[in-house]
Amino acid sequence: MEKTAILTPEELLKNWQGHRNLTRKVIELFPEKELFEFSIGGMRPFSEMVKEFLAIAVPGLKEFVSDTTKPFEEDHQLKTKAQLLQAWDEATVAISDLWSHIPHEKFREMNNLFGQYNFPVIDNIQYFIDNEIHHRGQGYVYLRALGIEPPFFWERN
Amino acid sequence: MEKTAILTPEELLKNWQGHRNLTRKVIELFPEKELFEFSIGGMRPFSEMVKEFLAIAVPGLKEFVSDTTKPFEEDHQLKTKAQLLQAWDEATVAISDLWSHIPHEKFREMNNLFGQYNFPVIDNIQYFIDNEIHHRGQGYVYLRALGIEPPFFWERN
Repeated sequence: MEKTAILTPEELLKNWQGHRNLTRKVIELFPEKELFEFSIGGMRPFSEMVKEFLAIAVPGLKEFVSDTTKPFEEDHQLKTKAQLLQAWDEATVAISDLWSHIPHEKFREMNNLFGQYNFPVIDNIQYFIDNEIHHRGQGYVYLRALGIEPPFFWERN
Repeated sequence: MEKTAILTPEELLKNWQGHRNLTRKVIELFPEKELFEFSIGGMRPFSEMVKEFLAIAVPGLKEFVSDTTKPFEEDHQLKTKAQLLQAWDEATVAISDLWSHIPHEKFREMNNLFGQYNFPVIDNIQYFIDNEIHHRGQGYVYLRALGIEPPFFWERN
């Protein structure tokens, strides 16, 4: 007999969208110029990290739903905070829609993400979330260095 | 009929211990003085974040195993990198040992962590991991600001 799941797909999606809500607040808190230019220690500006999140989330989920793979590609047309936030909100809707089309058994199947990272889908998704938490934490340091108080880490709504 | 789990307790532990291996590498890369003193924007030195991780992990798991709760308390006796690393390695062993004593059904039960955060155990654990990723990402910025190259994010062994 299978045991009760410690985590369901619906809960994992809720967890990710909660993190994405928090990331959206961080984007909003950056002044326009600093979002695209401010950096510490030669790292990327926060806007570049956000473009990475966007290039991973919806394209990644499309792979799981379509069983096809495409090379990783960031959208370099996103040049203002308003454009980033609009892309973010469109991705929020697309993520929930695509998620509902991932068959349950798919989560444990292998997927060669972007044609180069061959891992189980659940690992791919956990990586998407972990990567966003990691870089958003860096965005928190940028905000603090700019004298701006970041949101509480546990604010996900 | 229950569906196949998208994630097992064993996989979640492996994921966390992988993250903890990476955090250990970050601790090691800090010069002694900067580990305890360097900060950006008024944030805590990385050693303080590490003490927080230590104060959460083993004491948190003890709650799930013992069904008792204790207030959150950091160990302020950890004053050198060697002491932090030793505490880290002791926690690594303790985490895996305690984990093996968490009954499967416990993951979905409520736990009032440190007497104040009342959530399902699975949410408590996910928070432990997310919180470590978040602050370790901040440690990466500190390292970059110090001219030190951090480990690859995907290096977990």
